[in-house]
Amino acid sequence: MLLNVGTFIRSATRFSPFIIPHSSPSSPSSFCFSFSPKQTVSFTLQSSQMASFTTLSQSPPKLLFRQLFEKESSTYTYLLADCSHPDKPALGKVPGVKSVISKASGSKADVFVEPGDKISFGDLFLEVRATPGHTMGCVTYVTGDGPDQPQPRMAFTGDALLIRGCGRTDFQGGSSQQLYKSVHSQIFTLPKETLLYPAHDYKGFSVTTVGEEMLYNPRLTKDEETFKNIMETDLNLAYPKMIDVAVPANMVCGLQDLEPKAN
Amino acid sequence: MLLNVGTFIRSATRFSPFIIPHSSPSSPSSFCFSFSPKQTVSFTLQSSQMASFTTLSQSPPKLLFRQLFEKESSTYTYLLADCSHPDKPALGKVPGVKSVISKASGSKADVFVEPGDKISFGDLFLEVRATPGHTMGCVTYVTGDGPDQPQPRMAFTGDALLIRGCGRTDFQGGSSQQLYKSVHSQIFTLPKETLLYPAHDYKGFSVTTVGEEMLYNPRLTKDEETFKNIMETDLNLAYPKMIDVAVPANMVCGLQDLEPKAN
Repeated sequence: MLLNVGTFIRSATRFSPFIIPHSSPSSPSSFCFSFSPKQTVSFTLQSSQMASFTTLSQSPPKLLFRQLFEKESSTYTYLLADCSHPDKPALGKVPGVKSVISKASGSKADVFVEPGDKISFGDLFLEVRATPGHTMGCVTYVTGDGPDQPQPRMAFTGDALLIRGCGRTDFQGGSSQQLYKSVHSQIFTLPKETLLYPAHDYKGFSVTTVGEEMLYNPRLTKDEETFKNIMETDLNLAYPKMIDVAVPANMVCGLQDLEPKAN
Repeated sequence: MLLNVGTFIRSATRFSPFIIPHSSPSSPSSFCFSFSPKQTVSFTLQSSQMASFTTLSQSPPKLLFRQLFEKESSTYTYLLADCSHPDKPALGKVPGVKSVISKASGSKADVFVEPGDKISFGDLFLEVRATPGHTMGCVTYVTGDGPDQPQPRMAFTGDALLIRGCGRTDFQGGSSQQLYKSVHSQIFTLPKETLLYPAHDYKGFSVTTVGEEMLYNPRLTKDEETFKNIMETDLNLAYPKMIDVAVPANMVCGLQDLEPKAN
């Protein structure tokens, strides 16, 4: 069963996927990332519409992939599902939906992951890679390596690597040195054709590749010292408008303001 | 050679692709759709960045595909290229760039196409299908049918079919009856897994499929009479804010305000 939350809960400048349960709770069939740092709910998808995607694709490609965009905060949300797990559509919000975050984040969530973990949904899976630097808890999720996994591979880089940019490193435990190392050791080592999907884009781009960023990223193609100077001196970034609201929300995967409604 | 215009020229509520020439002018290797109805230039891509995409993908998939988004007008621009035509990267704007529009539009352009025409870029091609109804000149471009063409097929529906919606039919020679017939005969007859890319989206969606729209489009799943009522009575649409600017621009593929700069 491919369920979808009726509402994408905004969660994080930190990276917070939600597992949407399959009829067998131990084998979820879909996966949803939400990055929006806002307090107001961004997306409302009718689960009756999304739920039946499975009926449309009985044959390969098995991966259902949807990239969703929230304009106000320029935030992407991703929905991934294994379409080879057909089941009945379902309506309404999903009580069994589980939030996932890295153990290193120090946040609350239903499931904690560590580097090297595999997160399965149906017969597909994501690899967890630690990519701290924007925050201590940032991870990148990479689709599996193997003949029955999507080709080319896809990596969801959160705020670590953006298209022709990267996340800021001047707050929330950020470190430019760590971010540089993360990107070079965990993302730039993937095959060059790997598709990279970030948490945000402010210029209208939706996807890039490892090869493109290795050639054209204006910050991360530089040596480490230059990168550090750019991040710590040249950017002159303003204090983020929504940070006082977003960080507490991130620490509980954006779920804190749902509780009053549940009472 | 994959060249890219330094600026995506906003062009049309009508559908205006630009052919970006290959080193051999008779065989362009890339293709770019721009839909933005605005007067200000939406996208600025550095051609030095885009030009070298070819060096990144020497093996299948041959299609380079990028979906670009302009937030203010919620407009998508698409870049398609045949990556199997490697050549040197090139800098700067492309004097040889050609605008394409349907003959039925009555607009000015470099190349006029008619239903059934094939537009080749490298070894890939697009089929032209007439889908009038939003305007008389609307066409849908569909990737080729064949083992060496992208699978699943992709259709660029302009303003005819939007994700869970459709273009308005109350001005610019629009006709709800014609639009209904266009979508049902030219789009809904494609394989159900065909990916549909519209000219606009206002809700954060980036792609849909024929199968999804046949099940969930709130307007086009209705019978023709109900559709007509929805389009002509129920929508209560405001006079479009930018229409007095956009229509004259559309009639010349958005190129009219470049002339003063050329002088």
